Parts: sequence; structure tokens; C-alpha cells
Amino acid sequence: MNMRARDRGIVIGEMKTGTKNRITDVPGVTVGHVTLTGDGRNTGVTVIMPSEDNMFVSKLTAACHVLNGFGKTAGLMQIEELGTIETPIALTNTLNVGLVHDALVGYMIDRCEKDGVRLRSVNPVVAECNDASLNNIHERAVREMHVREAIEKASQDFEEGAVGAGRGMTCHGLKGGIGTASRVVEMGSEDFTLGVLVLTNHGRMKDFCISGERVGEKVYQKLNESLPDKGSCIVVMATDLPLTDRQLKRVIRRASVGLARLGSFIGHGSGEVFIGFTTANRVPNDADGAIMNLRAIHEDYIDRAFRAMAEATEEAVLNSMLMAETVESQSGTVRRGLSEFM
Amino acid sequence: MNMRARDRGIVIGEMKTGTKNRITDVPGVTVGHVTLTGDGRNTGVTVIMPSEDNMFVSKLTAACHVLNGFGKTAGLMQIEELGTIETPIALTNTLNVGLVHDALVGYMIDRCEKDGVRLRSVNPVVAECNDASLNNIHERAVREMHVREAIEKASQDFEEGAVGAGRGMTCHGLKGGIGTASRVVEMGSEDFTLGVLVLTNHGRMKDFCISGERVGEKVYQKLNESLPDKGSCIVVMATDLPLTDRQLKRVIRRASVGLARLGSFIGHGSGEVFIGFTTANRVPNDADGAIMNLRAIHEDYIDRAFRAMAEATEEAVLNSMLMAETVESQSGTVRRGLSEFM
Amino acid sequence: MNMRARDRGIVIGEMKTGTKNRITDVPGVTVGHVTLTGDGRNTGVTVIMPSEDNMFVSKLTAACHVLNGFGKTAGLMQIEELGTIETPIALTNTLNVGLVHDALVGYMIDRCEKDGVRLRSVNPVVAECNDASLNNIHERAVREMHVREAIEKASQDFEEGAVGAGRGMTCHGLKGGIGTASRVVEMGSEDFTLGVLVLTNHGRMKDFCISGERVGEKVYQKLNESLPDKGSCIVVMATDLPLTDRQLKRVIRRASVGLARLGSFIGHGSGEVFIGFTTANRVPNDADGAIMNLRAIHEDYIDRAFRAMAEATEEAVLNSMLMAETVESQSGTVRRGLSEFM
Amino acid sequence: MNMRARDRGIVIGEMKTGTKNRITDVPGVTVGHVTLTGDGRNTGVTVIMPSEDNMFVSKLTAACHVLNGFGKTAGLMQIEELGTIETPIALTNTLNVGLVHDALVGYMIDRCEKDGVRLRSVNPVVAECNDASLNNIHERAVREMHVREAIEKASQDFEEGAVGAGRGMTCHGLKGGIGTASRVVEMGSEDFTLGVLVLTNHGRMKDFCISGERVGEKVYQKLNESLPDKGSCIVVMATDLPLTDRQLKRVIRRASVGLARLGSFIGHGSGEVFIGFTTANRVPNDADGAIMNLRAIHEDYIDRAFRAMAEATEEAVLNSMLMAETVESQSGTVRRGLSEFM
Repeated sequence: MNMRARDRGIVIGEMKTGTKNRITDVPGVTVGHVTLTGDGRNTGVTVIMPSEDNMFVSKLTAACHVLNGFGKTAGLMQIEELGTIETPIALTNTLNVGLVHDALVGYMIDRCEKDGVRLRSVNPVVAECNDASLNNIHERAVREMHVREAIEKASQDFEEGAVGAGRGMTCHGLKGGIGTASRVVEMGSEDFTLGVLVLTNHGRMKDFCISGERVGEKVYQKLNESLPDKGSCIVVMATDLPLTDRQLKRVIRRASVGLARLGSFIGHGSGEVFIGFTTANRVPNDADGAIMNLRAIHEDYIDRAFRAMAEATEEAVLNSMLMAETVESQSGTVRRGLSEFM
Repeated sequence: MNMRARDRGIVIGEMKTGTKNRITDVPGVTVGHVTLTGDGRNTGVTVIMPSEDNMFVSKLTAACHVLNGFGKTAGLMQIEELGTIETPIALTNTLNVGLVHDALVGYMIDRCEKDGVRLRSVNPVVAECNDASLNNIHERAVREMHVREAIEKASQDFEEGAVGAGRGMTCHGLKGGIGTASRVVEMGSEDFTLGVLVLTNHGRMKDFCISGERVGEKVYQKLNESLPDKGSCIVVMATDLPLTDRQLKRVIRRASVGLARLGSFIGHGSGEVFIGFTTANRVPNDADGAIMNLRAIHEDYIDRAFRAMAEATEEAVLNSMLMAETVESQSGTVRRGLSEFM
Repeated sequence: MNMRARDRGIVIGEMKTGTKNRITDVPGVTVGHVTLTGDGRNTGVTVIMPSEDNMFVSKLTAACHVLNGFGKTAGLMQIEELGTIETPIALTNTLNVGLVHDALVGYMIDRCEKDGVRLRSVNPVVAECNDASLNNIHERAVREMHVREAIEKASQDFEEGAVGAGRGMTCHGLKGGIGTASRVVEMGSEDFTLGVLVLTNHGRMKDFCISGERVGEKVYQKLNESLPDKGSCIVVMATDLPLTDRQLKRVIRRASVGLARLGSFIGHGSGEVFIGFTTANRVPNDADGAIMNLRAIHEDYIDRAFRAMAEATEEAVLNSMLMAETVESQSGTVRRGLSEFM
Repeated sequence: MNMRARDRGIVIGEMKTGTKNRITDVPGVTVGHVTLTGDGRNTGVTVIMPSEDNMFVSKLTAACHVLNGFGKTAGLMQIEELGTIETPIALTNTLNVGLVHDALVGYMIDRCEKDGVRLRSVNPVVAECNDASLNNIHERAVREMHVREAIEKASQDFEEGAVGAGRGMTCHGLKGGIGTASRVVEMGSEDFTLGVLVLTNHGRMKDFCISGERVGEKVYQKLNESLPDKGSCIVVMATDLPLTDRQLKRVIRRASVGLARLGSFIGHGSGEVFIGFTTANRVPNDADGAIMNLRAIHEDYIDRAFRAMAEATEEAVLNSMLMAETVESQSGTVRRGLSEFM
């Protein structure tokens, strides 16, 4: 069985991890996958549920940052303008964004109807990477029922590796997929949690290194295979730190540090998109009154969150690779799990 | 029969219009609508075809600008990063973005297959306004067949007013919808064309004015009805001016001038999104070589394009209202055509 | 003597003005000018003091928006990153930005020394327009003593028109300069104030109109003179509304509406820069603790602030022109005051 | 005598360096320093001359990217809007930005007068880091004569380390300053050069690592001293690759990769600003005609430039540290040169 980085003794950074070293260490956050295989399929959907509540009714403060915009993520424009999210965040394959978008609309209509709320407009957030090398991407196999199933299955415990949206992904020429990690962030006398979930589909094999060790070079020698450096990385960050949308944006930008340390140089064919939200500072859809109270951290303390973001991203990417099993496409393309070489 | 602004003797600005005063005055550009009515529907789809070619194979230089991001437009992130578009631009209702997105993916897969090109990734551009006051928006009535039909029907001549994506829209408390206008832009000894198409769903009735005349105030006195100022405006600009993506972005920002002059103050509940492309400076999907030649205008000459953009947007919005017939929803909500009051 | 728009019976918009219809209606805000004339000079400096406090010690929440970046305004990068200002805002001529920047540094060093605070770094905000057609701009006549004098003279009452930084400016081919206006913004049971100060140096004469009346066209017929459409417009907004930096940014973007309604199409050679701050939500330089409390408005209420911004900007620009006397340069270039034609 | 990374056998990345492994390997680019010491001073100015020509007359295509905007760099707004630079780029200490800005204005006025060109407006580019821990920063010791001297002394050969603007800087708790490196970028059959110059003032000692080796940890054990992680990093990139401003922006964003690999997590108190220009695609101040020809690379080839940027930035930062001698402030603060520990 595959082991996560920490279980192998690989320690990234110096900060304490959350209880389970997962994004779901942030109270209220859950994650669900549906994985599709067979008949040419190696794809799926992963859903991050920022809250159990109806998020349209009680929105979450959020931010996004585009490091490389060669991608098709939907929903960022409104996050940027209003600083909130109001739906689950879904991850899937590139050509499936439209159908998953529609599935989230359908889910939110039903959810709001059940809650007695009239929904006329909603902003689904759907991010993607391209799994065409292992998956028959033209099929757009992820349908509304899969998205609903992933939402229903969402829980604090969830798998990493070649699962959900990560099923067909490639990272540093090896098998990529879903990974997660978290850090405890002390602020004054309180402890907060910052968790990261990544969908990894980026990087060149030869560039890959772990804590400075050039692991990718060694694997490359063994496999003697060269892949074009194409792909993307989606990073979703959750926290219970009381941050404003501007502060969230500053924090998630540090995801790039984690990517770079493992060897990525943020290639052209690579949509690097970061999305973050906090479970503090909820914004009601219907105003109680004109004035709201918010909490924020004094920026003198933000470095702890920056460091947590960089560390958790690096570890989450590593976990996505270490936990991924080898996957073969219908036509025989193989992406090996990193654990085979460890 | 309704008449456009010029046919009523209303002249916006001082520049010469294109041959038909339409976005399709730009050579190669066509527009198609499918309008859906009955059974609670007042919605549809409008497709702008920037070129007859396979645009994935030969992309167009493009830019976008978000004036108010409270909206769900998909595809802007990649335009921003790469400065190109590679699909038709589709306009529809807010909750239909996902299905129309998927329809464009399906269309592009087929188109590329026919042209012998392998498509693994494509960036559909879908913009929207909210027609929920006249349309049963939960239905998401626009399906792949409608998008394909709109593409097939695309031509240089096309209707304005309560058609296509504009069927259920409201502008300044009256019937909004689709409008268009164009301007001739002299550069040195050459004449170029800049055309605009708008989907209008914004503004308050009392604020509406034509060439400074407070028409909205008068209509308001007659109708004695007050509407919440909610909505959006999508502006698509086409030109054959040789512009870079940065120059295109500067030009389309001036759309806001046209909106303001008719009385909009760019309300909160209003996704104002501008997208522009040029048919000059095509970018091949497969490189011929590493270096490409582009043409641009010297920025000293750009004011002519700025003025053309402001004028054409103002006139296009006016046309969208003047050409729109009165539409009633299933539940009896009525949006009157402006021409009833002229 | 010149009269402001309201005193002439010109009413812009529908909202109530603040007590004096000035930016200084916002409690704590003061403005000071130093005007330099003679020996080829028609220039100066205008200082907006957001607060009487040491603003480095207790920063103000702030935002900026660049409508047209063909300008030299300094200090925006940090406002964008941290959402605060920590110095007075100075306006001057284009080539004087460096010296005024240094003067603000000097002032802040002294101010902090007096207050027993060690200042190692500070972000002066200096905006500019180009007065070269009336002023010997190469001289960079504004020196540290002038900036200090403007700060000392800052008060709730201050002149408009051809004064301070506005001395040498040209607006719509006539004399531009400094103008101001304000609006009362009701939120729930509370009244807040939003005030605007502009430095106007933009627009073409023929395009100028007041409430839809083509005044510029008439002046153009009389003067028979055509000016190149070059210049800029700086808009500074102050409010006591409890807004976040993101909300401030949304509000100040609506300044463009006011400019467009008077006839500007936001020409190329025109640095349109908007800066806004609120006296609510102060941010201490030294943190009391990690967590801060902020207040914000629910976005459902923000349209009132948007409308106030559009109205106040339009009226402030008009006041800048109506209050400006005719100014002649050493070489005989004349810019006439609008009031001569009213 | 100190040695650069390569001379010590430290090889960063896999690409070939330019002839001298300096930014000045790009034809036409020169660099000059003036270093100020004594009487409490440890500061200076470094000037990058993108071209020997009058750059106001013949501008260079340029771009900027702000990774962390907690800084005072001047001139970025216009680069962003117009995609060009028109002056030398000056680097200095934080509080000296105003005077150096004014010095560049003065220099450009004189230069244009000599060339018979009337200059009314110019956009100086001045970037900064904070040297207050080693320098009496309140003095603003860099004056116009120093800037002029640095311009006059600019040449292809120039010093690295604790010189010019780098004199008082601190990097990873050791002595920072000026560093440079370059890479050869093959495009088709042609070789181009991409060079980087950095001003380093960022990072925590314990985080510093070279090619994955935790050097900072070891130094920290020896010195037993902990510094607050404050500071900035300015990265200037020059190339002769024919890039558009958008492409330049994409390339310079990859500077962050180099910073992260050496251990930076892009701390809060750190203005990370990247500026890039190409000597291809000059833009004349006075248009010859409305239409200009540009060259660009096909984006399929841009990864080579991305990798070059990441590698050259990492090596330049390392050179800035390896070439820096130990510097002591008047009050006895010491920043040791990295070479003491190698």
C-alpha cells in the first residue's frame, strides 16, 4: 500500500500539521470523489464542500489567483469581484467543465428549493486539468449524477492519488492526481488550521526533486522516457483563519513556492489556478442590515499563513504523487506511481 | 415595424458607420440566433462567429475586460493569458452557461475532426445575462442542438431586439436584448471597421436618456412602475484593425463610456463584461516556426478606435432597445419595447 | 465671481449633497493648496489630508483603480497589495512627482519623529496631470517647502478652479483644475458622506456637454480653436462609509461614469487614476493583537455608494471648470474659464 | 576574492549561460553603480541602461509583474498600460525613490534637449529595497549627481555584491546586493539571450538552500542569530527575444521560481517586483505611420524562455550573495558575506 510523505519520513517545512494533515482538518470542510474507469475512461470528479450549510444562503469569503491562465476554470470572475463563493468547488477534466458546471447549477437549484430559497443566479466554481493522455477526454464522461454522488459522499476522510478528478492526471512525468496536507497556524493565543488540496498535472520528470534530492533525474534514467511538459495544477486552500478576501489572495499566491520547490518552473501549457476560502467571515445572501462585522488578521502576522501555504502545497503535491497507483490508458500509455521508485 | 436609432434620425457621435452599421461589417464576422419561446420560455442563444475558418487551428488575437464581475462568463482566464480566442462566442442566460459551454466543446470536437485536427483542449467563450424575470431560467432550455443551429444560421444579416440570448432581457426597465452598430476607423490611408454587438440587461428606467434627453423619466411617469436596477451588459467588439491584445483591451474598456451616456451608473447586480477580437494577427495552433510577424497600430492613432468603441457601444445599446418588441412572461410580467414610447 | 454648478442651478443627479458639497464634508478630511505663478510658472500642489492623525501610525483602508495608465502616479502598488494609505495624497504636475514624493517622505519622517515613532519605510501617494501647455514644466517648481505649506494650510474650506495642482490644467479645451462635490449616502438608519476631489486635465472641447446640452460645441463655434485631446483626470474619493478595500475599489470605478457623461471618451493621452479611502476601518501600524475587527456594508446596499460616486465625480469635474478663471501662459497660450461662456 | 556560483562549481539548471553570464550579454544593455559609504551610509544607486539610444525617442517593449506589492517602485502603471519603457531603470533605497525619480527626469530632459526633442512628459522607472538596517536611510543620500554618474559609468562589465543599490541589502540574513546571470535561448535556428539582474533583500537565513542543500541552517547554527524576515527582491530581465509585452509578462513571472528554490516563501514585508524588456520591437515616440510591424514568438516555444528566466534568477540571487563582502553599519550591525561560510 502506498504511503504519504510523512509516513515515509519525508518532512516538508517546519510547521505542525493539522490532526490528519488534510484539508478537512478545517472544521466543516469535506471532500468527495467519483472515479470513472473502464471503456477508455480514466477520469472523474472531486468536490470540495466548504461548508455543510447552503452556501448560497450563507456565502464564504474567498479569493482566487491565476498563476498561469492557460486553462478553463469557471467561476473566478465573480470570486474576484465579490470576494465570496456560493457553491461547492468541483474539479474535473478540461472538456467536462461545461457539464459539471451545469450539474452544480442543478444541485444548487434543488438545494435552494429544499431550503425554501429562490435561486435566480448562482456562480459554480469548476476547475480542471487535462487528462487526455490517459482518458478518452472527448467523451466528457462526468455527468450530473456523478457530481451529485461526489457531493453526497463528501466526508472528512477521502482518498488521495489516482482518484476522482485526479484519475487521469500526470505529474512530473509520473502519476499525478489528488493530494492534501495541512498546517496549524498560531495567531495570538488561538490555533487555526490551513489546509490544501491539489489536483496535479504539471511538471517535467527530470526537474522533479524532493527536499532538494533530484529524484526525477534518477527515475528518468531508469525509465528512459521523455514527456512533453504539459499540464496544470489546481490548488484549493481552506482555512478558519479570519481573513479578508485580499488577505486570502495574498496567502494563496504562495502556493507557487511549493510547486517551484518540487521542480516546476510553471510551464506554458499549464493552467495554474489557486482558489482559497475561509470559514470565518460568512456573508449572508439576504442582508440583515446594511452594516456587517468582519474579522481580519493584522498583516504583521500573515507570514505564518504564507509559510503554511507554501509548506502545505509542497506536501500536498508530493502526497498526490506518492499515493497514486500506476495507471494505464486503453491505448497502452502508462503513468507510473512514484512509490514504485521510492 | 421597429426602427433602428439612425432610421429614427438619432445620430450617436460623429464618426461614419460601417456599410450596414453592424458588427458583421467586419469582413468574416457572422452572427446567428436561436430564440426559444412558449411554455414559460423567453430565452435563447446568440453566437458570434469571428471567422469562417476553424478558429482552433487559426486563433484570433483577442482581449477581455471586466467592468463589473458579478457574472458567470466563462473563458476569460485564457483570453487574458494568451491573448487569443479559439471558438465562437456564445451568449445565453445565466444558468445555461454550462450546457452552452459543453455544446461549444462538442461543436469544436466535430469541427476539428472534420478538419483532421486532434483537439485535446479548447477554451469556449460563453457570456450571459439573467433573464429570470421573463424566462423560466431553472429549465436551462438552451441545448446543444440550439447552439449548433445558431452557428449554422450565422450570417451577416441578423435580427436585433428580443431575439436569441436577448429574448428575455430587460434594459433600463424596458425591453432589452441584442443590438449592434459599427464605425469606420481611418488609419493612414486605410479604412478599417470596428463593430459592436451588445446583450443588454442593465440600467434603471429613470436614468435612461438619449443624447442627453431624459426619455426614461418620461416613460417612468407614464408607466408609474419602478424596477430594481439589476442586470448585466455583455459587449462583443470585432475589428479588422491590426491591434495587439493589449491594444484591444484598451479599446474595449471604452465600452463603459457608451453605457454611461445612456444613463447606466454600472450598478452592483450587473455583470459588465467586454470581449474584443481582431481578424488581423491570426495565431496558428501549430507553429510554422518560432518567430511570427504581427502588425499593430502606433498608439498615437488609437484615439480613433477609442471613439469608435464608445460611439458604437452607445448606439448598439440604443438599437437593442429600439428594435425590441414588448415581451410578456408566463406569469404576466411585461417588458415594453422602447419604440412604443417614441 | 465664479459660481459652482449648484449655485447656477445645474443639478447633477438626484442624491442629496453633503453640507458644503465638498470632499471635506467627510469628517476629518482637509485640503490645502499652494499655487505658483509668474516667471513662466502656472503650477502648484494640492494635498488631501485623509486624517489629522499620524496616518503612518494609524493607516486608512484604501483602494485605487487605473482607468487609463498613461500617467506617472506613485504609490499605487502598495495600496493595491495592502489596502491602506499611510500618507497625505499629493497632486502636482507630471515632472514634479519625484520632488513631491521626496517632500512627503521628509514630512513623514519629521511627523513620526515628533510622535516618537521610528519610520523606516513609507509609501507616499503622488498623482499628477500634465500642465506643460501653461507651465514651464521642466522647472519642477514645486519644492518641499510648498508641499509642507500646503499641508499646514489644509482645512475644510479650500478653493476650486485654477489653484494648487490645478493651476495649469486644461479640461475639455477650457480651463480645468480642482473641483469637488459630495453626496449623503443613507445606510439603514445612518447617514454617511462620500466626497470627491478631482484634478481635471482631459477631454475635447467639442465633446463637452452639461446634462446632455452640447455646451462644448457652442464654445467651439465661438472660439474656433481646436486642441489636441490630451490630458488626465485624477479622482480622489473620501468617505466615512465602512467599506473594505475591495468595496472601495468597486465604488471608485464608477468615477468613469461621471467623466463620460460630461463628454470624455477616456482618450489615450490621459492618465485616469482613481484613489479612494475610508475613515472607518483604521489599521494600526503596530498590531495590538493578531485579530482585528472591521466593518463592511452588505453588498446589497452598495448601489447607493456607486450612484453617489458617479454623481459627485460629474459635479466635481463641472465645478473644476466653472470655478476656474482664465489663465494665460508666458508664451501667450490662453485657456478660458467656462464661466465666460455661461 | 569572492567567486561567483559557477566559479565555485555550483551549476544552476541545465541551460547554457551567455558569454559572461550577465544581463549585459544582451547586446546594447549596460549597467552602472554608484556606491555610497561612510558617515552612516551604506547605500547607492544602480542603473540598468536598456539601450544606448535615447529611449524616449525609441521606446522598448516592456512588462512588469508584482509578486508582492509591499514596496514603492515607481513607473509600473505606465509600463502596464502602454507596454513600453522610455528611461533607464534605476534601483536604490526605499526612501530615495523620489530624488532618484527626479534625477531621471532631469537626465531625460537634458538628453532630449541634446537630441533636439521636446520632452513634456516622461515615465521614470525606479525600484527599491530597504537598506535601513545598514544605512542611515533618513538621509536619502543618493542625489542627482550620483544617478548621472551611474549612467555615465554604465558598461558591460560591472560589479556584483555589496555595490550600488545593493550596498546595504540583506538576503537570507546574510549580505545581499546586486547579482546577475544569463542564459542562451535557442529559437529555431537563432540564438537569443535572456539576462537577469537582481537586487536582493529578502528571505530568512534558516530557509536558505543551494541546490537543495540546507546551507542556511548550517550558517544559522554557527552565527546563532535570528533576523526578522523582512525585505524585498527586485528582478530586472533583459532579452533580445522578439516578445510582445504580454509574452514578456509571462516570462518574468517565472522569476518567482528562482526565489523559491533558494528558500524564499515570499514573505509579507517584501516587495517582490519584476520588470522585463526586450531590445527587439522598438516603438518610436513619433509615429512614422499608423501601422507598425512587430515580431513575436509562437507561444509553443515560450517554455525555453520560462526556464531561462527561472534559472537565471536563481543564479543571479546566488551570485548577489556569493559576491558580497561583509558590511557593518555605523551602529555595529553586521551582515556577513556568504563566501565566509563556503
